[in-house]
Amino acid sequence: MVSPAIRVAPSAANRALNLLRTVQFTHPPNCPCHRNPNFHHQQTPSLMTHVKRHLATPVDPAREKEYAFEMAASSIRFGPGSTKEVGMDFANMGAKRVCIVTDTNVAKLDAMKQAIEGLSREGIEFTIFDKVRTEPKDSSIKEAIAFTKPYNPDAFLAVGGGSVIDTAKLMNLYHAYPEADFLDFVNAPLGKGRPVDRKLLPLVAVPTTAGTGSETTGTAIFDLVSKKAKTGIAHRNLKPTLGICDPLNTRTMPSAVHAASGLDVLCHSLESWTAIPYYERTPRPTNPINRPAYQGANPISDIFSLEALRSTVKYLPRAVKDPEDSEAQSNMLLAATLAGVGFGNAGVHLCHGMSYPISSQNPGYKHKGYEVDHPIIPHGVSVAVTAPAVFRFTGASNPDRHLAAAEAFGVDISNVKRESAGEVLGNAIAEFLVKLGDQPRGLKDLGFKSSDVEGLVEGTIPQQRVLMLAPNLSGELEAERGELRKLLEESLDY
Amino acid sequence: MVSPAIRVAPSAANRALNLLRTVQFTHPPNCPCHRNPNFHHQQTPSLMTHVKRHLATPVDPAREKEYAFEMAASSIRFGPGSTKEVGMDFANMGAKRVCIVTDTNVAKLDAMKQAIEGLSREGIEFTIFDKVRTEPKDSSIKEAIAFTKPYNPDAFLAVGGGSVIDTAKLMNLYHAYPEADFLDFVNAPLGKGRPVDRKLLPLVAVPTTAGTGSETTGTAIFDLVSKKAKTGIAHRNLKPTLGICDPLNTRTMPSAVHAASGLDVLCHSLESWTAIPYYERTPRPTNPINRPAYQGANPISDIFSLEALRSTVKYLPRAVKDPEDSEAQSNMLLAATLAGVGFGNAGVHLCHGMSYPISSQNPGYKHKGYEVDHPIIPHGVSVAVTAPAVFRFTGASNPDRHLAAAEAFGVDISNVKRESAGEVLGNAIAEFLVKLGDQPRGLKDLGFKSSDVEGLVEGTIPQQRVLMLAPNLSGELEAERGELRKLLEESLDY
Repeated sequence: MVSPAIRVAPSAANRALNLLRTVQFTHPPNCPCHRNPNFHHQQTPSLMTHVKRHLATPVDPAREKEYAFEMAASSIRFGPGSTKEVGMDFANMGAKRVCIVTDTNVAKLDAMKQAIEGLSREGIEFTIFDKVRTEPKDSSIKEAIAFTKPYNPDAFLAVGGGSVIDTAKLMNLYHAYPEADFLDFVNAPLGKGRPVDRKLLPLVAVPTTAGTGSETTGTAIFDLVSKKAKTGIAHRNLKPTLGICDPLNTRTMPSAVHAASGLDVLCHSLESWTAIPYYERTPRPTNPINRPAYQGANPISDIFSLEALRSTVKYLPRAVKDPEDSEAQSNMLLAATLAGVGFGNAGVHLCHGMSYPISSQNPGYKHKGYEVDHPIIPHGVSVAVTAPAVFRFTGASNPDRHLAAAEAFGVDISNVKRESAGEVLGNAIAEFLVKLGDQPRGLKDLGFKSSDVEGLVEGTIPQQRVLMLAPNLSGELEAERGELRKLLEESLDY
Repeated sequence: MVSPAIRVAPSAANRALNLLRTVQFTHPPNCPCHRNPNFHHQQTPSLMTHVKRHLATPVDPAREKEYAFEMAASSIRFGPGSTKEVGMDFANMGAKRVCIVTDTNVAKLDAMKQAIEGLSREGIEFTIFDKVRTEPKDSSIKEAIAFTKPYNPDAFLAVGGGSVIDTAKLMNLYHAYPEADFLDFVNAPLGKGRPVDRKLLPLVAVPTTAGTGSETTGTAIFDLVSKKAKTGIAHRNLKPTLGICDPLNTRTMPSAVHAASGLDVLCHSLESWTAIPYYERTPRPTNPINRPAYQGANPISDIFSLEALRSTVKYLPRAVKDPEDSEAQSNMLLAATLAGVGFGNAGVHLCHGMSYPISSQNPGYKHKGYEVDHPIIPHGVSVAVTAPAVFRFTGASNPDRHLAAAEAFGVDISNVKRESAGEVLGNAIAEFLVKLGDQPRGLKDLGFKSSDVEGLVEGTIPQQRVLMLAPNLSGELEAERGELRKLLEESLDY
């Protein structure tokens, strides 16, 4: 604590000097002149011109770049066996009627048993909605929302993977906005992108997979069938109150699921680490409630993303090789959560943007180890399959970050030239995927042909919310089509 | 997202195997046998004995060690000029009557001007309590609480240093518990350590110093005059809703204040990084609401603490040398917040424990650069003065962590023996303090004599909440007195 008595108010001269220094300060750049997307560095005016501009009327916010970032995450409890505490958590919050959200498979697992016993011990009334659809559609979300209404809960509990937690978030959202149209909150331009400005009910999320990080984020993803697009609703006020990460709950994942979920974590960390910095994003929001959760890389998300990447490289191969390696599994659950905090506050970009059409335009591929009765490209697989090409492409945008990522994969970067950063990282990712085993070596292995590329490009273009965070992308529609086409062609095999 | 269809319920054989593996898994150790403080590793039973014990009745929680950790932090917005957004934040929350908390000096600064303009623009009614006492006492806190009652606000805004933010937290707390006795929530054993189980009003904190990290934590510190002790109230539910970290607000700190605040950040990171791991803490709480915020080092607090340490070593000397070095100042504000998340979820130990009697038993020292009319040992100075001795002492508890910390100070640790870890870190800290300039080289420089040590020992003993997190401390009262005596004697000069 500091005595405020010794602070001095700045003199006018000091203020001018401070302003000059602030202008010179490059992290983050702090001058409106630099926030105009049409402003080029070659035209840098003198510092005094900067100061005068700074003191003049502000630039149109729609053309100004961002100047602040915001970091929000659910509280996280981590510990083997901590699921059983959830009843006490609801009692502590004063909840009396809990709506439990799950799916028919998770409903049979120990995680649900522990949760139900926890609630019962505290005498808390509850109902169970177990009809969550894996990879939810707007129709399945609406069915879940309709279930909520007659029960009128005062809290939600999600037990399951990302689909379950995402569905629970939306049940909670529309419970607080009973009059809203479904599209009001859906990401623009498909929906209206309305911000969440009401207090939602408490939501506790208990993940049973180590992948999505949904327990920490304000993001919910689903298929908007009428628009044939995978989209979602994203706002930091949508995030759960508490995520309970209990490593005993992920023990039942088979090896193939570990691999696919872990590749999602890998790409969450790589994409958020390499996303454009927040201060390059436009427009600057005129109200902080409109500052997106996917705001670009920032100094706090960076810490989470890089740590999650290192941990995933270290533990995912072990978790896949031996699904009962508790240490590796436990660390992968933690990595998934850390990556969730990272991308939940920075965003993802090209791998995720292209993964949605890859999954939905599946020519008939059924991933090994997935015992389901229909073709399936698991989300993590569809994300990772373009990663080697993506990071070769983005390397030039920030060689230092790409080299640091390559180093996380164990590459000795001491003699690597900066212009090779993307190539080196792309190769490291490809090698990691091959060694992990049972992964497609490109889109061809998934059944895609060169003639399918155009459809994948068109399916990616609507994902502007993530594409806008991609470094090195031109930002102009036709050029962007060309860049995506090239990335997808290069991803046909690696 | 993962298809739950392919998950398999574990067979009994798998469950036993999982249990064995869980027992073998050392991070965190997961077997009740190891949680008994009287259990010695020499007596490690066979794995099957472990399993049988595990399946038997649970051990008394009071003697069991912790098995989970919980991570909670305020949302943080960071950006130069972001203070002006605060009016919109309150409007977004639906607040209509805001109680602004500050002190008479901060009240004159630009931070307050920006905040007031922000509220006025949104037409939000407010009142200002500007009588916060630096280094608050219970009496000044009670005066602040009394101020709140007739105004009946629906939100709080704190603009100032740690004293201001801490006072605002307690105004918010007792506003929600009007019937409570002041001691109900004060840390045990001085108070009853009652957990915060009601929903508090929104509190937005705008720090004007880069030190306490109070904008992210659930901790509030004050002098409990009747007990002659510096203590506080700590619960994660006490944390602000949002911290607005605006580097423009710390520009007015003079060099000496930068140094002292920065040393607080340095010790927050060093102490939380080296605190006992959470799974060595007893007792295990029987209800998660009783899990302390000061829970010991954990994998998430570690990330924050180490990053804050590295940043402080890099930027504090620059911020002190040139208080108008915006980049260094801005990074110190970020480091203070990161360290706040770290120690706010892990705790501090010996430096902070001894700092309280050092500050309150001040023989008459007045720190250079502090233009006040009374003797003062700034908090950061009283914390850092014992750091060289403390980390020499704690080194043996975890040589790897102490070496990593030494490396953060720029020490080449490649040839350092593990048994020298404490010595090397202690020396690195001492050198850092000397180079920073204008710091006392031990308690003697503050005016303490050898004969004062006993008083400082007795003043430290009541700080059990932090001493229990100290590694390498015996935990037995008389032995602990001896250890503290030795640390304080070694801190007389360095």
